[in-house]
Amino acid sequence: MSKTVPIVEQILSANDQIALQNRSQLDASGIFTINLMASPGAGKTSLIMATIQALQNEHRIAYIDGDIASSIDADKVATLGVPTVQINTGGACHLDAVMLQRSLPQLPLTKLDLLVVENVGNLICPSSFRLGAHRNVLIASVPEGDDKPYKYPVMYHGVDVLVLNKMDVLDAFDFNLDYFQRGVEILNPGLIFYHISCKTGEGLAGWLEWVRAEVAAFKKGGGDGYEIR
Amino acid sequence: MSKTVPIVEQILSANDQIALQNRSQLDASGIFTINLMASPGAGKTSLIMATIQALQNEHRIAYIDGDIASSIDADKVATLGVPTVQINTGGACHLDAVMLQRSLPQLPLTKLDLLVVENVGNLICPSSFRLGAHRNVLIASVPEGDDKPYKYPVMYHGVDVLVLNKMDVLDAFDFNLDYFQRGVEILNPGLIFYHISCKTGEGLAGWLEWVRAEVAAFKKGGGDGYEIR
Repeated sequence: MSKTVPIVEQILSANDQIALQNRSQLDASGIFTINLMASPGAGKTSLIMATIQALQNEHRIAYIDGDIASSIDADKVATLGVPTVQINTGGACHLDAVMLQRSLPQLPLTKLDLLVVENVGNLICPSSFRLGAHRNVLIASVPEGDDKPYKYPVMYHGVDVLVLNKMDVLDAFDFNLDYFQRGVEILNPGLIFYHISCKTGEGLAGWLEWVRAEVAAFKKGGGDGYEIR
Repeated sequence: MSKTVPIVEQILSANDQIALQNRSQLDASGIFTINLMASPGAGKTSLIMATIQALQNEHRIAYIDGDIASSIDADKVATLGVPTVQINTGGACHLDAVMLQRSLPQLPLTKLDLLVVENVGNLICPSSFRLGAHRNVLIASVPEGDDKPYKYPVMYHGVDVLVLNKMDVLDAFDFNLDYFQRGVEILNPGLIFYHISCKTGEGLAGWLEWVRAEVAAFKKGGGDGYEIR
């Protein structure tokens, strides 16, 4: 008799299993979730604050902040009156699905439409750890330089939206927008891309329209069809 | 008879063992070595190029560049005519001692006074991996924001010199120099600190004087008394 050989396909890592559980919970609660990543100082917290201020009359929003130390960003965002959780990773260079899993019970899950998770400031490590979100958003910034897509390809490849912040200082830096965009296009063809300045408000309307449309589509269609982010 | 119990103190990690070997080799070759760390886009390569251009008539300099992908920085620095090695970490978020060990044989070790190692752009991971260098140098930059010492304490705590770059755009950003400096002072009291702009050349003289003095002291006194960096 031939022996049956078990075949196990696509084994999930421990992190991915928890990410899947997080997603099920977020989908069941009707919470559209964004995983926001960037270098230190690109403007994650500024964009989040601008987004909350613009949309908190339309949507019930919550915020989870990941940092290796301090609660500087969470303290700022909490002043806007939205539910806020601070994760201190204690040295780890990225959030992971377990950290999100432990944070979710701290939020009023039945009373939320949109959750924004601010990952640790890092262009490398966060791209390798799914949290269970619906969309990955990357913030780049003009002062970082136009070569970053070429030097951090995994990050640029793995996101659904790119926001280029600090456009107000474009003239003060040697930033070649064409070169930057060519790198983005090679790694992530057709990527949705907004040029903004959190300081002046330039370009924010387009970004806010994207968030509105995404929340609306999710509310209408549910969580199927999104990658685990 | 009492049994002798072996006590093993301060076991070195595999990485630290290799870092120690690297240091022995660098000391024996008379090469003062700097491990340069920073966020993506803070200006590591710009500072290195300015340093090489200013000092290459006084010292024999070599450059090792760590990036997860590309050879953009190494190509730039190589135009200055100094021996250059590119390390592509293939995804790893930091250099380690083995990567440096493998790179050293690519350099003319008997003909060098100063080696500058540019680590991967990251404010977290590189601070946990010794390479075998003599000094750790951190470049911060104004556009990153004044809260970075508080948010990345391990990095700020573990360096011998801090260079704050892009001082030419200070007025364009909400950067509170006092707040930044208080954070630095808490984490690393008395840290040597230069305010510079690689673009305008402001403040570079102080940094160059530090490099000159360090190379001279090392040439005179050898590698004893330096931490393994």
